[in-house]
Amino acid sequence: MQLSKQNLQNRTNYIYDAIVIGGGAGGLSAGIYLQRFRLSSLIIDKGKARSFWMQELHNYLGLPPDTPGKVLLQQGKEHYASLDGDFLNAYVEEVVDEGETFAVKVKVGRVNSLFATFRTRYLIAASGIIDHLPPLEEMRNVYDYAGYNLHVCMVCDGYEMTDKKCGLIAGSEASIEEMAFNLSWFTPYITVFTHGTFEVSPPMRQKLREHGYPLVETPIRQFLGQNHQMTGVELVDGSIVELETGLISMGSRYHNSYLQELNLEMQGGNLATDKMCRTSHPRIFAIGDLKVGLNQVVIAAGDGALAATQIWRDIRRARGARRWEANV
Amino acid sequence: MQLSKQNLQNRTNYIYDAIVIGGGAGGLSAGIYLQRFRLSSLIIDKGKARSFWMQELHNYLGLPPDTPGKVLLQQGKEHYASLDGDFLNAYVEEVVDEGETFAVKVKVGRVNSLFATFRTRYLIAASGIIDHLPPLEEMRNVYDYAGYNLHVCMVCDGYEMTDKKCGLIAGSEASIEEMAFNLSWFTPYITVFTHGTFEVSPPMRQKLREHGYPLVETPIRQFLGQNHQMTGVELVDGSIVELETGLISMGSRYHNSYLQELNLEMQGGNLATDKMCRTSHPRIFAIGDLKVGLNQVVIAAGDGALAATQIWRDIRRARGARRWEANV
Repeated sequence: MQLSKQNLQNRTNYIYDAIVIGGGAGGLSAGIYLQRFRLSSLIIDKGKARSFWMQELHNYLGLPPDTPGKVLLQQGKEHYASLDGDFLNAYVEEVVDEGETFAVKVKVGRVNSLFATFRTRYLIAASGIIDHLPPLEEMRNVYDYAGYNLHVCMVCDGYEMTDKKCGLIAGSEASIEEMAFNLSWFTPYITVFTHGTFEVSPPMRQKLREHGYPLVETPIRQFLGQNHQMTGVELVDGSIVELETGLISMGSRYHNSYLQELNLEMQGGNLATDKMCRTSHPRIFAIGDLKVGLNQVVIAAGDGALAATQIWRDIRRARGARRWEANV
Repeated sequence: MQLSKQNLQNRTNYIYDAIVIGGGAGGLSAGIYLQRFRLSSLIIDKGKARSFWMQELHNYLGLPPDTPGKVLLQQGKEHYASLDGDFLNAYVEEVVDEGETFAVKVKVGRVNSLFATFRTRYLIAASGIIDHLPPLEEMRNVYDYAGYNLHVCMVCDGYEMTDKKCGLIAGSEASIEEMAFNLSWFTPYITVFTHGTFEVSPPMRQKLREHGYPLVETPIRQFLGQNHQMTGVELVDGSIVELETGLISMGSRYHNSYLQELNLEMQGGNLATDKMCRTSHPRIFAIGDLKVGLNQVVIAAGDGALAATQIWRDIRRARGARRWEANV
């Protein structure tokens, strides 16, 4: 059921089989599998998964390629609700390992917040990442284009940029190195913007020159365009660079601060997992963008199936087989 | 484009970046990703993927839980065609490693067959498995119920069997051991059928007795029911066992004979792969049910994304970055 400030006390003296932190593609898929395995589950979602921002999901098998990310999420939420899974809109502040169970401490509501603790045997961390966007005075201006023709994922949307004049908005020299020359697979008409946020080394300047990619270091004042189609940028000095598409590569923030005290094994910023998405803690799983691997909706959905299945196997093995008792 | 006997000669002097063998969930997802990576691809499909038989896909994120498997496949095929991928209905007889390329030898059409050879740099084996069904005199009778309430996959459909009188139709003592006691998670009202195809050892008889699961060794004459809802079985001696659902566990056939000469590393009947679905041959990938792992539609779809992305990385790295040349 949908939990809220009004009814959540019904569940605070309860131990779930699994609590899923994050109601994006990975978390919803995990929830659907958990409920179909007849396990009790709660999804805690703070809202606005990365896929929520995707105006069109172009690469998810089974959905028409103009399906908005939020339609996928809405369908998944209805699917999970139809299986009687519990869902709560809240922010997870901390997870405490109590031995047999985890205490999941949440804050419900931004105003007149209510604080509550839920308990679970298994935990699935599915809270994903969110991309850093260029910090402009008017963030509204960025949101007008981000997820339309101003992209954040080359694997997802490189195809949409094919042979277009593309602005690569980089957050560091490493992100120029990582993205610019790979992006050229899709389009070689690349202008690199630093937005004035970092220095570019002489060797990188040379490399960009050799490839014919202009480097713009003056900060961006605003994106230009209309109807969510970005057509260029205006710099703070008033000059204009015409573009047909853009790729933002300024890094991302991992939504995993609640795991801090648990000392899970990391690999870079990602959680290390085995092939069933189990972390270094035997009862904590990590799926989707939090773990090492590709950040793709379909992979997060598959991860949800893997983690839920392994949790079911663990619990099933511990409980043993049931006898055919009495009358059916 | 859709290839056929009439037009396939347009592609026989061509080297694809990747040929995908199998047009099920894994193969279609791979094809969508490959085309979006601007690689040339051909999917060769012999028809009737395992998911084609699923009357309702209950656990695929983003689709209503009564979506037939064939609707997912049709949507995927249209999606792939919209990206200009090549598709051929044919049977792959053999794959020959020619060094830089693979020769993929196909038979097109069951009557007046045409034999042709296609070439590719990379190969994705996505041809899956098909379940063995109980061999009855009238196979039509099995197809009337298989995929409805006569299931073949416990992970997929255990939920549908919850607390129902279930017939487990086993193909070996190992499959009784593997399935019966796990199936009891969903329902303990299990009758085990051997269909007279194998002997059951005294210890297993004892174990079944202890769990209260009747063992029926008389062969099945036919399934009973109507409107695709199986209500029991009639045995060859005329006696009837009432059931509300069934699970067939008689093993499966791997569609991988075309790989025989390539000496790929196996693990049991499955192909061993790394986390990007690469087999022991650096240019052959295996996805979905052929590889080690869970046989789930959403996982096959995710595998397709992994394999296609790794192939793109390989090819992209080999070709290097493009310069911004001349006029855009």
